[in-house]
Amino acid sequence: MDDQPFSDPASLLISEDHYITRLLHASGVALDSLGVGGAPSDPRQTWRIVAENWHLFAGTASGYWLEEALDQVLEIDEALDADSADRVFNQIQNRLDTPDFRPRALFERFKIDVLATTDDPLDDLAGHAALRESGLPGRVIPTFRPDRYLDPENTQFGSSVERLLALTEETATFEGYLAALRGRREHFLHHGAVSTDHGVEEAYTHDLEPSDARRLFQRALDGTLTPAEARVFRGHMLLEMANMSVEDGLVMTLHAGVLRNHSSATFQAHGPDTGHDIPVRTDFVNGLRPLLERFGLERDFHLVLFAVDETVYSREIAPLAGFYPSVYIGAPWWFLDAPDAISRFRAAVTETAGFSRGSGFIDDTRAFLSIPARHDTARRVDAGFLARLVVEGRIRTRDAERIADDIVGAQPRRVFKL
Amino acid sequence: MDDQPFSDPASLLISEDHYITRLLHASGVALDSLGVGGAPSDPRQTWRIVAENWHLFAGTASGYWLEEALDQVLEIDEALDADSADRVFNQIQNRLDTPDFRPRALFERFKIDVLATTDDPLDDLAGHAALRESGLPGRVIPTFRPDRYLDPENTQFGSSVERLLALTEETATFEGYLAALRGRREHFLHHGAVSTDHGVEEAYTHDLEPSDARRLFQRALDGTLTPAEARVFRGHMLLEMANMSVEDGLVMTLHAGVLRNHSSATFQAHGPDTGHDIPVRTDFVNGLRPLLERFGLERDFHLVLFAVDETVYSREIAPLAGFYPSVYIGAPWWFLDAPDAISRFRAAVTETAGFSRGSGFIDDTRAFLSIPARHDTARRVDAGFLARLVVEGRIRTRDAERIADDIVGAQPRRVFKL
Amino acid sequence: MDDQPFSDPASLLISEDHYITRLLHASGVALDSLGVGGAPSDPRQTWRIVAENWHLFAGTASGYWLEEALDQVLEIDEALDADSADRVFNQIQNRLDTPDFRPRALFERFKIDVLATTDDPLDDLAGHAALRESGLPGRVIPTFRPDRYLDPENTQFGSSVERLLALTEETATFEGYLAALRGRREHFLHHGAVSTDHGVEEAYTHDLEPSDARRLFQRALDGTLTPAEARVFRGHMLLEMANMSVEDGLVMTLHAGVLRNHSSATFQAHGPDTGHDIPVRTDFVNGLRPLLERFGLERDFHLVLFAVDETVYSREIAPLAGFYPSVYIGAPWWFLDAPDAISRFRAAVTETAGFSRGSGFIDDTRAFLSIPARHDTARRVDAGFLARLVVEGRIRTRDAERIADDIVGAQPRRVFKL
Repeated sequence: MDDQPFSDPASLLISEDHYITRLLHASGVALDSLGVGGAPSDPRQTWRIVAENWHLFAGTASGYWLEEALDQVLEIDEALDADSADRVFNQIQNRLDTPDFRPRALFERFKIDVLATTDDPLDDLAGHAALRESGLPGRVIPTFRPDRYLDPENTQFGSSVERLLALTEETATFEGYLAALRGRREHFLHHGAVSTDHGVEEAYTHDLEPSDARRLFQRALDGTLTPAEARVFRGHMLLEMANMSVEDGLVMTLHAGVLRNHSSATFQAHGPDTGHDIPVRTDFVNGLRPLLERFGLERDFHLVLFAVDETVYSREIAPLAGFYPSVYIGAPWWFLDAPDAISRFRAAVTETAGFSRGSGFIDDTRAFLSIPARHDTARRVDAGFLARLVVEGRIRTRDAERIADDIVGAQPRRVFKL
Repeated sequence: MDDQPFSDPASLLISEDHYITRLLHASGVALDSLGVGGAPSDPRQTWRIVAENWHLFAGTASGYWLEEALDQVLEIDEALDADSADRVFNQIQNRLDTPDFRPRALFERFKIDVLATTDDPLDDLAGHAALRESGLPGRVIPTFRPDRYLDPENTQFGSSVERLLALTEETATFEGYLAALRGRREHFLHHGAVSTDHGVEEAYTHDLEPSDARRLFQRALDGTLTPAEARVFRGHMLLEMANMSVEDGLVMTLHAGVLRNHSSATFQAHGPDTGHDIPVRTDFVNGLRPLLERFGLERDFHLVLFAVDETVYSREIAPLAGFYPSVYIGAPWWFLDAPDAISRFRAAVTETAGFSRGSGFIDDTRAFLSIPARHDTARRVDAGFLARLVVEGRIRTRDAERIADDIVGAQPRRVFKL
Repeated sequence: MDDQPFSDPASLLISEDHYITRLLHASGVALDSLGVGGAPSDPRQTWRIVAENWHLFAGTASGYWLEEALDQVLEIDEALDADSADRVFNQIQNRLDTPDFRPRALFERFKIDVLATTDDPLDDLAGHAALRESGLPGRVIPTFRPDRYLDPENTQFGSSVERLLALTEETATFEGYLAALRGRREHFLHHGAVSTDHGVEEAYTHDLEPSDARRLFQRALDGTLTPAEARVFRGHMLLEMANMSVEDGLVMTLHAGVLRNHSSATFQAHGPDTGHDIPVRTDFVNGLRPLLERFGLERDFHLVLFAVDETVYSREIAPLAGFYPSVYIGAPWWFLDAPDAISRFRAAVTETAGFSRGSGFIDDTRAFLSIPARHDTARRVDAGFLARLVVEGRIRTRDAERIADDIVGAQPRRVFKL
């Protein structure tokens, strides 16, 4: 909104990027020294640590993204290592101090059509409104992300629901709670949102009788649910979210199969999103069945499934998306947003579901400067995949050309109702 | 038997092929308009819908099969799209009206040695007998498929067992039930059957004490089994089938890991096998252990394992088949019967089990005209795999040649006792 | 120690190598005829059986290893088949009777730096001491392998713990038991051990309260634990092993996810390690969490995770090793120690964790003569992987060269504290 310059290389490129800080941490670097979780740190010193350890990133997706950002966006022409650390730091700092490297200039330079943030349901979205009026040549839209309002085991559930009901002036009943969520979704819709986002450990849904839902909601507020009951309530609320999507048209995206905050000590010292979220197996086929039994055949309902366990692509997600009109295959996410993994993804889903049932490539980055590199990587890998099919006589060149355009243009626009 | 001409392009190539109809359905086409589940529909209109949406199949296995059938079998020389739809329809219809495109002529043209149908245990197999006497230059043999007679949770279990006992004049005791099944297997053997086929959600077996089996059977007839007891009974009956295979020599094929009829609404409207069977994880190693403890070392027992979860190939099926003389690795099945998936399959199993422990390629199609394309695909992919091993210095050319022949000839004949 | 010549080709190359004997068994060869489990057998006859069936090994890892051993180590220049069997047998026997083919000469010829055996905790390690004093140009070091002392469901648990306590003169209390284990680890450390090895069916750990651990230990001695309690105790003891590793610095290696002795009849007739250990799914992320919560951030603790389910590489092990400084990715193990599997392994882990978080290649062989072939295979595949990254513009040639050296030299030395 304010188009403030980025302050320094480390806070722009390192401290918030848990892909980078996690691998340094694995090699013995203290997270505090990298400014993780807002720890006070000297940006130049952080940058030196990264430079000294830069060889660790050879072959990784994060290494490729940062090198591309340095080379293509920041126009640094020497390799990063202990020797070049200070020079590179200075050059980046110089760039960041010029108008061409302010956020808005880069947003234009990157030719971003749509950038979606994820936001708390109670956010007033004033920032989005201001941006919209500022004449940016692309859209920055909010996304409704209600995890903490739906999960009774989230430590913030009680207080979150309390604030939700207060803001919306609804009663502390299950009906009031649903009405409040509907109200906030409507608020997001008015501010341009096209989707809701749900981050869950398991792709589990449940279809409760209304009387059971009411009862569990009250006990959730009282904090007296057993773990099994909390799971059922959480699963039911995911189904209610689908129900509301059927009503209001917001696309539902589900990011499932991550155990958050695996290391309690790290969470206590540095907070969430600091590199110790770890994938776990989850079952989309049985887990989503109650939701799909209710809403899977609804024409305008869009449910986009993202996974970090790549075994589900050929076994679960492609078969589901190849039948249910509502189900779309999310682009390879997180650890899988990398060249070889994207290539495996395409091979895993295409023979069953073709190209039309995917979300098309969307990135999921916290590292603003990596956006061009991520899209470039995905496009190259997809082009390589299509080229192989042409060479093997499996598709025609003209079809490959159409698909290459479609999966980065019309397809994501259609799936996300843009 | 009667060698009736195929009626029209849509009912021959589309309506029964749930690989094709499922992807159209995912894209918003109503199943009724495709004639799925016997819905009355205009073949030409169905064909137009397929042609308009044909781009959806680019890169899919079904797309490749249908294009090969059009090009190689039906000798259509233009690409299918909205513009060509009617012309192609007419050309196909013309072909189907000529003697060269009757079922028997195609059977001969495809040089089919053996075609196995799957049949209800109570089928009198008169059709097979008639075919046998008709002088077809290959064998059409029945396969014993008793799922509904073995699963107390199948809605048709009670009535099926009742009919089974009535036909075989056996008593409603567990012993009578086993004797009846034995009798029907013998009937199938007399009609040329070489195998039994079992489609199950999980690869689960159980070795019950006779008194427990008797007790559960009576309660299964009464419909009073709990889900856990039904599972145990079903698992025990799979083991009894293995026992009978040891006795009578029928090869046992197991197709495990599919949740049938995921969408109840679709099942109610269109019936089974309409595109919403979805793979699920299953555990062959623990699940089959009771069966293999009893019969795994029997010399003439053949158990062929088919999977739709490709992770089991390197982890479970190849290690089992690389030790137990009775266990064979089934060819990639269903969603996995596609070029890239077959290639991954070969890479997953060969280093552990070589080439001799596989079933060799067998197709599993409902689409008669796709048979040549399916075998052609598998042969090409296997040849490509062998060629890579030769180039990498891992096998000799003469071994590659021997194996390429063996896995489509001697090997499946040996595994299926043909 | 004594440098006795190897007695004959069959006992050197076949009878102890369950990779080879298992596939012959699957093809109908009786294990007794191969000398498995110490069965008396005629080496020449065993060799003939192998030669007649040698075509079964085309494309397998074991086939490649044995051919390399014949060609490169034993300098046999004709292919093995029924016709050449006796000639090859005679040539090998001649080699084995010469001084150049005694164990010590081969050890030198193979340029082995370090060879680690796995040993019972009560072993006096006199053999290792003798070897050390004999002036071998490399190290042969023991590894502490306490499985049977930690698992109450192991049939030898009671007697093993009894002997452990007797040898160490400790009391039959939980504290005495821990002290005894500590004492034996110290003994191993004094004899050059750098690691402990743990073979478990599941990667499960548990952090018991001391009073509960004491109580379960007493009941374990009494043989009165339920299976669930035995699991918890076993999980807790794995955590205690990690605790001791933090104290004494021994690297902890975990080989998880194998169901041992799948065929009871084979186990009873031929004993363990006779080819019917089968991989099963296991969950490293939840299973190891208690252990990692306690010790995962300890700087000098090294935990190397080996798997035979390759799906865990990208989903579980690379993400864990990319965050926890203590966790290392074990080289592809057992069924996965083969060219295509190694290649998949590299593609699965590198984009997330780079090259620095792996153990580097270590073989795990019972077949002494296959050591050069195994290292050669891994090096070739890794070099091929690096070359691909160079060609694709993903790493620089000089980085590829550094990494190729590092992962077979500095890296395993650092991970195993050599």
